[in-house]
Order: sequence, then structure tokens, then C-alpha cells
Amino acid sequence: MSHLCIESQLLSKERQNVTFLIEELTNIWDGGKEETMIRRRVEKLFADDPELKSPPLCTMTRDEEFTEATRKSAYIYRHFIPKHKLYPSSRESKHLTSVLFRAQPLATNLFIHMGVFVYCIKTMGSDKQVAKWLQLAKNLNIIGTYAQTELGHGSFLRGLETQATYDRTTQEFVINCPQLSSMKWWPGDLGVNANHALVMANLIIDNKKYGMHAFIVQIRDLSTHKPLPGVSVGDIGNKFGLGSTDNGFLYLKNVRIPLENLLNKNAEVKPDGTYLKKASDRLVYGSMVNLRVSIPKQCTDVLAKACTIAIRYSGVRRQGLLKPDGAEVPILDYTLQQHKLIPQLATVYATNFAGLQIQKKYEVFLQNLSNDDISDLAELHALSASFKASVSEQGTEGVEVCRRACGGHGYSQASGLPSLLARVTPACTYEGENTVLYLQTARFLMKCASKKAKDLPKSVTFLVQPTQMMNINNVTSLDFIVHCFKSRATICVQAAAKRLQQTMGQGVEINEAWNKNAVELVKAAKAYVMQFIVDGFTTFVKGLKCSKPTKKIFEDLCSLYGLHFINNNSGDFLKLGIITAHHCNLAEEAEIELLGKLRPNAVGIVDAFDFSDFSLDSCLGAYDGNVYERLFDMAKLSPLNKEQVHQASYKYLRPYLLEGRDILEGSKSKL
Amino acid sequence: MSHLCIESQLLSKERQNVTFLIEELTNIWDGGKEETMIRRRVEKLFADDPELKSPPLCTMTRDEEFTEATRKSAYIYRHFIPKHKLYPSSRESKHLTSVLFRAQPLATNLFIHMGVFVYCIKTMGSDKQVAKWLQLAKNLNIIGTYAQTELGHGSFLRGLETQATYDRTTQEFVINCPQLSSMKWWPGDLGVNANHALVMANLIIDNKKYGMHAFIVQIRDLSTHKPLPGVSVGDIGNKFGLGSTDNGFLYLKNVRIPLENLLNKNAEVKPDGTYLKKASDRLVYGSMVNLRVSIPKQCTDVLAKACTIAIRYSGVRRQGLLKPDGAEVPILDYTLQQHKLIPQLATVYATNFAGLQIQKKYEVFLQNLSNDDISDLAELHALSASFKASVSEQGTEGVEVCRRACGGHGYSQASGLPSLLARVTPACTYEGENTVLYLQTARFLMKCASKKAKDLPKSVTFLVQPTQMMNINNVTSLDFIVHCFKSRATICVQAAAKRLQQTMGQGVEINEAWNKNAVELVKAAKAYVMQFIVDGFTTFVKGLKCSKPTKKIFEDLCSLYGLHFINNNSGDFLKLGIITAHHCNLAEEAEIELLGKLRPNAVGIVDAFDFSDFSLDSCLGAYDGNVYERLFDMAKLSPLNKEQVHQASYKYLRPYLLEGRDILEGSKSKL
Repeated sequence: MSHLCIESQLLSKERQNVTFLIEELTNIWDGGKEETMIRRRVEKLFADDPELKSPPLCTMTRDEEFTEATRKSAYIYRHFIPKHKLYPSSRESKHLTSVLFRAQPLATNLFIHMGVFVYCIKTMGSDKQVAKWLQLAKNLNIIGTYAQTELGHGSFLRGLETQATYDRTTQEFVINCPQLSSMKWWPGDLGVNANHALVMANLIIDNKKYGMHAFIVQIRDLSTHKPLPGVSVGDIGNKFGLGSTDNGFLYLKNVRIPLENLLNKNAEVKPDGTYLKKASDRLVYGSMVNLRVSIPKQCTDVLAKACTIAIRYSGVRRQGLLKPDGAEVPILDYTLQQHKLIPQLATVYATNFAGLQIQKKYEVFLQNLSNDDISDLAELHALSASFKASVSEQGTEGVEVCRRACGGHGYSQASGLPSLLARVTPACTYEGENTVLYLQTARFLMKCASKKAKDLPKSVTFLVQPTQMMNINNVTSLDFIVHCFKSRATICVQAAAKRLQQTMGQGVEINEAWNKNAVELVKAAKAYVMQFIVDGFTTFVKGLKCSKPTKKIFEDLCSLYGLHFINNNSGDFLKLGIITAHHCNLAEEAEIELLGKLRPNAVGIVDAFDFSDFSLDSCLGAYDGNVYERLFDMAKLSPLNKEQVHQASYKYLRPYLLEGRDILEGSKSKL
Repeated sequence: MSHLCIESQLLSKERQNVTFLIEELTNIWDGGKEETMIRRRVEKLFADDPELKSPPLCTMTRDEEFTEATRKSAYIYRHFIPKHKLYPSSRESKHLTSVLFRAQPLATNLFIHMGVFVYCIKTMGSDKQVAKWLQLAKNLNIIGTYAQTELGHGSFLRGLETQATYDRTTQEFVINCPQLSSMKWWPGDLGVNANHALVMANLIIDNKKYGMHAFIVQIRDLSTHKPLPGVSVGDIGNKFGLGSTDNGFLYLKNVRIPLENLLNKNAEVKPDGTYLKKASDRLVYGSMVNLRVSIPKQCTDVLAKACTIAIRYSGVRRQGLLKPDGAEVPILDYTLQQHKLIPQLATVYATNFAGLQIQKKYEVFLQNLSNDDISDLAELHALSASFKASVSEQGTEGVEVCRRACGGHGYSQASGLPSLLARVTPACTYEGENTVLYLQTARFLMKCASKKAKDLPKSVTFLVQPTQMMNINNVTSLDFIVHCFKSRATICVQAAAKRLQQTMGQGVEINEAWNKNAVELVKAAKAYVMQFIVDGFTTFVKGLKCSKPTKKIFEDLCSLYGLHFINNNSGDFLKLGIITAHHCNLAEEAEIELLGKLRPNAVGIVDAFDFSDFSLDSCLGAYDGNVYERLFDMAKLSPLNKEQVHQASYKYLRPYLLEGRDILEGSKSKL
């Protein structure tokens, strides 16, 4: 249809009513005007390349998805990146990762190879090993995976069972998975594509165990790509989303690798079996922190996409009346719809800009690290662990809220929302299961609670200081909101510490005492990270230099984020005496008022994320709002519509339907 | 492996420690000993029939799933049911539905045909129409759908756009979808299999609109199954789960049907165009209530399955230590895991047994209906609407909690958990979007609030009476818990009514006033239905006659359900002055204590649901606990493992890997 459909007209009207400059918000979001420019350039390269086009995801089988992902990934690393000189040193490269991630799930193969296998060789290999393997890996001349998790063990690293036994006579390691539960399970790029694996295994020399080490193991033949003797490798089967990802299993039986395949920058085995420790393993934490900083950003981006889809759709979906004889209204006019969606927008902002604070801390840490100073590591680890946990949970919940807020169409794969959900939720589990991560943060907090303020990093001294009362004039004030979250964190941490002490005072052994108080401990960790997010976002907003209307958007989203959480968890604040029932009522009213204020700008705010239709891949979320035509066009592509009559299915009904024909036509001829 | 793996041994040990008779619990769950017997008989018929076997769901494409579902459904209705005489009048038939549902998603095709199309003919057709169509439909001689929802309209029925215009000259109705958004979208069994549709359309005679009526429209040729002229019909594309379901679109352009195809029990059009209303549409509510009573039961069953899988798996998954030098412990020993899973078990019980109370009310309603007494309809409608909304939400949240509590393996389709999630979550949207349903309940509650106690059904008089204070000795006491929920409902309903009055007192028009206070109104509806669930379950538990250990399980689950909710929503109770901060602390401690009490029986309680391995269809949840071997066996069946080398994918990597071979073998030959 060439004329502008009513849905498109509605979105245009929304855009006319926006009170701020969308481009300004986009620039802030990207981290500056120039960054926006570079990002757009990279996105355009990606979108314009015919090799990077795919059929719509929702029309493909898993096998097709998988194959397509391999095709595109290989093309990207061997052609697209060199052609456009998007090397890691270039300013474009930062955006490349995000563009690739935006274009998931159809460009995700070789992520573990490129991101982890290559990285491990670089950081854990000796110079000689780097010289041998690095360039090969970068060129896809070998394809590797990072094989740590086993069928029977994930979180508890000490429980991993795979063994690498040194055989002095041949100067080889013999790699074995002693039992079924020891086989490697889940590693990305492993099942089908990899011909090498970086296997984490217990090093054993002369029956003595030396703990986990990293070994490069060739698993498939270099010519035929067939599994080598002793290697059982394959795909682990279909998953909740991520169909294109090559998660595999690897069962190793007496696979022999040369001595030189132990990555030996930090630890070495001499030909005679002597074991040499060369550097601390603690440095490995640095890279874990790195990964945990990048995951929240990905979750935030996914939620931003979901918000874009749901808010644009709510601007064009008309349903029901607000005036008895008026026209039907877009569902975004309903307070309940605003109450579902706009807080998700606030979550995107809060987690994104609080994340920048961790990023800064991480950069400082890396500087200190180069001077062998790792004093910030404990805090950074605690913060990044709980931040990853919290943002992945908020992202998952938020995407699901957005999805369900789209009614029936939110179930269509064509909406893009189910695949966003499937993309964000695994972040709750990979790279540290969230509950385990919260407990790690709690460990840090309990250590803090046992110290004096002067012995703590400045950023956490508030945890051991008395909370202060505050005179409240205005519940939407950012100072008040930050105060509430800080007080809650302090009280929760101190209470958990006290209970832990009490339990142990009764003679309960430490692990058991932790277990008994685990619910409280996780609550303390959550309170800690929430105060960090609220504080971090507030700090950013206060320091932000921009036009007044844009600043107002930030302030409103910041208040909304805090108030929405307080209203949904008011018990925590009431019980601890931080606020009163009266404040609760004010906070609830203030939230509804903020929703009303933000509503006219909602479409503008999601426009500012600047997702292209290509990267959104959603019939409901496209810029022009032409949702129904898109849904219909996409439906026509359904594989089940290939034939006018679906013969495979019809054959089971045909005999009965022909009986029906005879009866109906018989009765007709009788008439 | 013929020996008992350690995982199986662990589950056996769990079962040895159970303190109650599992069979007794099963009988209560089924509604009596005899019902258990009949259910098992039906399940066995189903499980033993080779025609009802399918490949594992997680190994199939959507197209295969769909075809398999048609095959099985046709077989069930035309062979299995007649062969075993499982007719609607038999005692077995009740269990058949649940067995079919348990065996979803591979036996769900023709559900809308059998459940709704057939039902509508029976209840909305004249005797003549019933005589003509009913038997044909039952025999699958015609296959129909119920086409109401349109691309552009779902919840707001008055907004539906499809038209049936009477043409007096030919005595036909002309059916039209005036625009793209008017096409029927979502109806089950429509896209591929149906050759008829019950189309809901606006009746128009001489330019006058008579509202929605039901028309039988033939859409495919009886011989060739090809779409008829003017009919555009097909599959709407892939969805979040339910891949096997035949959700379709239907675009009708000047499709003519004879006068007799208007289902005319309640309303009739004479050949000359005279319109006759014969009965009230209000009676249709009865069938809606019926559907809304059956959906919660299905959600509860899905959650029961998820609990079975997650709890059994948690009994065999060993990870980490509770004593420094002890053996690794099953994760069910961790308080945090108990805190995730056992409340879900309580939810299964609470929603199941509270649902029985609605069932009873419904039966009374049907009796009264036969005397033309529909005085209970308003309450029953309000109750079943919010109950459907609440149980579908609790079910969805619960399944997701169970899924994530299984760590990485919870993402595997082989765990069965992702497909349970995909099965339960659509219940939040179909047959009434939950938010819309809560508002309908709120409408009833606001009417109640404006009346005197003596003018209300007895079951809701508490809503208009003052709440009482209660002396609390024991926070786990069921009386105390019920009191908390009733008080909360009363205060919320009265507060919402007051605010609504205030807003309208300011001259705001009613729809707008509802919109302004919608968050409060939904809160009131939620508080109302939660008090019903807690009260209903408590009433059941108190009246239950059984052995003492079994009774204890019920009492503990009942307390846990209430306390878990109070602890997670303490703000609502604190703010309203129903409990104090001190009670909160007691309630939190009491919950942890209850988890510890229930933990030794957790595996026994899920065993009592008596799901067969066949119906669970989960590698993690099978009775014997042999999870790792099952996961490995299932992975081997992955379509991506069909060839040792996945040629489709490999071809994109081969050139680079061969380069690598040449470099590596070149360097070797140099050595």
C-alpha cells in the first residue's frame, strides 16, 4: 500500500508531540556525537552488504538458522572485517561488537572462538604458543572452543572431573573424562564447527593433582573434519532460543596431546614432570570481570529493543474507548499500559548509565593492575558479579513484560519479542549463575561489615555507618530516593552480618551458617547492587550537560526507576523504618504522575535508541508503524504455507473429509 | 548402564525418607482412590498405543511437529476414543482431556474444532442446524474453527470489523473483512486443517447493524481442500512455543453463505430480512466461565510438571559442599534452592484446591441456570476472570522459577522446561487478556463496594465490613494468614472505590476516572482473588480427612503459600496496618523453617502427582533420576548430529581450515 496507513499516521503524530530533540538523546546514548556517527557508519556497512542478508528468523528451522549463522560469521571475520578494516584497534570496532550483537542470533557462531579461545591463547599462552596458534585462530585456520563446564558440574569449579595426566615416557598429556558426568557440555562453537578445544582439566603428575589448567586439544581431523579417535563430539540438542549457537558436548577417552599444548604462561610442566608455578591465578579474575561488564550492556540493549517494539506498537494499536462515543485510543493512553512499559524504559537507562560507572572502575583497575596493584579487585568483583546478576534479571523480566504487553501478537515470532526473551534470559545463568554470584557479592559485603570504615574503600564505607533520617519534602527528589536505597543496603548488610554471627555463635559451622542465612545474604547483595544502580544513574544524571528538555527526560526516568522499585518492594523500606505508609501513598501517586509526564515522549525516547528496522527484525516495532501489513506479509512466508494444501498434514484428515463431502453433497442432491 | 547410577541411588534415598504415604496424596490429588485408578487406566491405554508414540519433541522441526500433531489428533478422535469407548458420558472421559493435555503439545490439533466449534453448534444452533452439522463435525467429516479475534482487535469485542451483510435477493449473507486489520487472526485449527469456520461477524440488514453473530462459513473445497474463491487462509507463522498448533489467518472477500448458516438458536433472520431476537446473550457467559475454570487447572498441571522436574533434578544434582571436607550435596539441600522450588509446590496445591471451590460454585450456577436463575453470574464471572488471570500468572512465574533453578540444563529443550513455559504463558493472554480480566473483576468489586452487606452474596460481604484486628500468637496459623488476606482485600477494595468516587467527584468522566485509578483497581482485584485462593485452600485443608502425616503436608504447604506471598509483598500488609515489622521478621523466619520441614518430603510430594515419564517428557525429571545418561542419549538424536560432519555448515569453514591444515602440517614436516 502506498498511502500512509492509519498506524503510520498515529506514529507520526506521536513524533510531532515529542518535547525534546531525539538526536541529542541518541548522542548521549552513544557516548557522543562522533560515536553516533561511527556507529551509524558501521551499521550501514552491515545493512548494505548483501552477504549479510538472511531470510526472516521466524521462517527458519534450527538447522537452517545454524547453517546461516556459520555462513555469516565466516564471512564477517574473513571478508567483512578485513574489507572495511574494522580491526580491534579501530574506533569502529567497539561498535562492530554491538552491531554484531544487535544482529544476533544470525551472526553468533564463532563468538566463543573469537572472543574466548583467541583471548585465552593471547593471555594464557607463552610467547612461543602465541606465535604458533594466535594467527591461525584469528584467520579461522583453526576453530576452537573454551571447554570448561561439564555435564555434571557448572558453578562449583573444584568439582570438575576431566583429567590431564602427564605421561613422562612420551612427554604427552593423556586427557580423559572419567565418567559420563565429566564430559564437556554447553561450550559454544564446540559441537559442529570447532576442530580444537581449550580443555580445562585437572593436571595430574605422578598421581599428584595440581588443579585446573588449560590444554589445547585437537578434536577433529584437519582434512576431513571427522572426530579424532577417542573423541566423541556433537551438538547438545535444541535449546530455549539460541538455535543458531553451536553448543556442544565433548567426551574424551585417552586423547594424547603433546607437552607443549598446556598453555604455560602462568604454569609449566618440564619434560621430566617438574611442575613450575609462574604467576598468580588471581589475575584471571580480571578477564572474568571484563566479561561480566559486557553482559549487562548486552542485556540492556535487548531490553531497549523490546521497549522500542512494545512502545511503538502501543502507539498504533487501538483498542477500546476512553470517552463513551470517542474514537478508539492507542493502548499507550491507558495508565496500565504505561505502568507496564515506561518503567522498563527507565530500567534501560538506569542499568546502562550505572554500567558506565563500573566500566570506569574497571579501567582504573586495569591501570593499577599494570602496577601489580589489585587492591580494587575485591570490590570490583563483588560489584560486577551482582550487577551482572541484577541486570540480567531486570532485563529478562522487562522483556517479558514488554512481550506480554503486546497481547497475542507478542507471542508471534514475527514480533521479534520471543527471540529477544530467549536471547536475554540465558544471561541469568551463563558466566556465573545469578544466585551463586549474589552469594559471592555477599561474601565481600560480610567482610566489609566486619571492618571499620577507615579500612574500607570509600565507596562502601556507608555500609558500616549508621543510617541517617531524612526530612522528606518531595518523594520524587533524587536525593531522597538515593537515601532510601543506601539506607536499605546498609541495614540489610548489617542485619545479615549480625545473623550470620549469631548462627556461628551457636556453634554452627561456617558453610552451614551461610546456608541457613542464605536468603538474607542474597537480599543484602541485591540491596547493595540496587543502591549502586540508583546512585550511579543519579550521579550520571546530575552531571549530565545537555538541553533542559532532555535533562528533564533523564530526571523523570531516574525518579521513575527508583519510585517504581520502591512501590513494588515497599515492604523492604517500610519494615526497616526508612519510609512511612504516608510516603508509600505519595510515592504511588508520584509514579502515576511521572508516567503521565513521560507518556508523550515515550515514542521519541525509544526512537532515540536508533535501532534500524534491520536490527529490530520485528513486524510490530518497525519505524513506520505499519504493523498489520508486515504481520500479514510475514505470515505468507511461513513454511506451512508453501503449498496451498499442506499435503503432509492433510493426508491424515482426507479420508474423513471425503466422507463429509459425500454426505453433504448427497444431502444437497436430495434437496 | 545396568547398574544403578549414583543419581538413581540418591532419589531412592529421598523416597525412603518420605514421612507420608505417597499413594494417599495421589488419591487426594485425583479426587479419590477410584479416580486415580481410572486415570491410570486411561494413561496406560494412551502410553501403550504404538500409534501415539512420537519422536522426542526437541528433535523435530515445526513442520514435523505440526504434521505429527494432526496425525495423532485424527487417530485419537477416530480410532482411539471409539475403540476404548471413552465417550463424554464415561467416567474415563474427564481423565482423557487431562491425559490429552498432559500429552501436549503433540496431540493438540483439532482442540478448537472439538472443543469450541462442536460446542458452539450444539449450544448456538437450532435443532435443524444441530441435526445437520453436529455429527459431521464430531466425525471429522468437516473441520471447523472459531474465528473471532482479528488482526486489529482482540479484547475489545465491539471493535471487531468483519461484516455479514444480508442479501435479500439471494437469501444469502455476504461475508467481508473490510480492511487488512479485519482479517481473522489466531484461531486454532484454522490455518491449514479447517475447511469450515464459525465466523463471528457484525450482522447488517438494510444498512442496520445488529451486532456480533456466529456464521458457519465453508472456507476450503470439500474434495481438494483448496481455499474457495474469496477466501485467503493460511498459517500465521511460528510462535513462542505451540509450534504444532494450527493458528491461522482468514481474509474473506465477498464470500456468500446461505441464510441457514447463521447459527440461530438465539437470534434469527427471516428470508425477508426481519430480525428476531430469541434469547439473551448473557447465557453465553456461562460457557466463558466454563472455559475460564478449565484454564487454571491446565496451568496448575503444567506447574506441577515443572516442580516434578526441578525437584527431582535438585535431588540428584550435586554441586558444592556444605561441610568443608564432606561429599558434594544435592542442591535441594541449599536453602536458596528450597526457597525457589518449594513455594511453587505450594502454589500448585493452593491453586488446585481453591479451583475446586470455583468448580463447585459453577455447578451450583448451572443448576440455578436450569431454573433461569442467573443471580450468581456476576460473582462467578468476577471470580473466574481474576482466578484465570492470577493462576496463569503464578503458573508462568513458577515454571520460569523452576526452569532457572535447573541451571544450564533448564535451557535444554531436553529438560522439557522451555516447552512447559511456552505452554503455560499463553494462558496469560488467550480467553481474556489478564489485565482486561482484572478490570472486569474490579468492576464487580466496585459495584459491591457501593452496596450494603445485606444486598451482597454472602461470600463477599466481608468486603464492605470493617476489618478487625487480630491477636497473633503464631504467624503460621492458617486463621491468621486468612485474616491477613481478607483484610488486605477489604482495605484495597474500599480504597479503590473511594478514590474512584473522588476522581469522579472532580467531574472526571467515568472511563477516564477508571483509567486514572486503574493501577489501584487492578491491585484491588488481585487482592480479592488472592484472598479467595488462600481462603479456598485453607477451607479445603481444614475439611480434609486423611492420615496425620499427609494432613501435615497440606497444612505446611498452606502456611507456606500464604507466608511466601506475605513475605514477597510485605509492603501491602505493612502499609495497611495489617501486620507490623515484627510480624514480618517472624514470617520470614517461619517460612525458612517450613522449607526445612517440607524438604525431606519434597520428592515424595512431586511423586504423588504421578506423572509418567511418558507424560513428563523430560531428561531431568524422569522417575529414576538418571539425568546425565538421558541428556546424552537425547543429544545424540539432535538433527545437527545426523552426519559426523555437518556438511551444510562445514562448507563455509572448509577453505580456511584447509589453509590451517597446510600451515600446521607444513610446520610439522619442517620439524
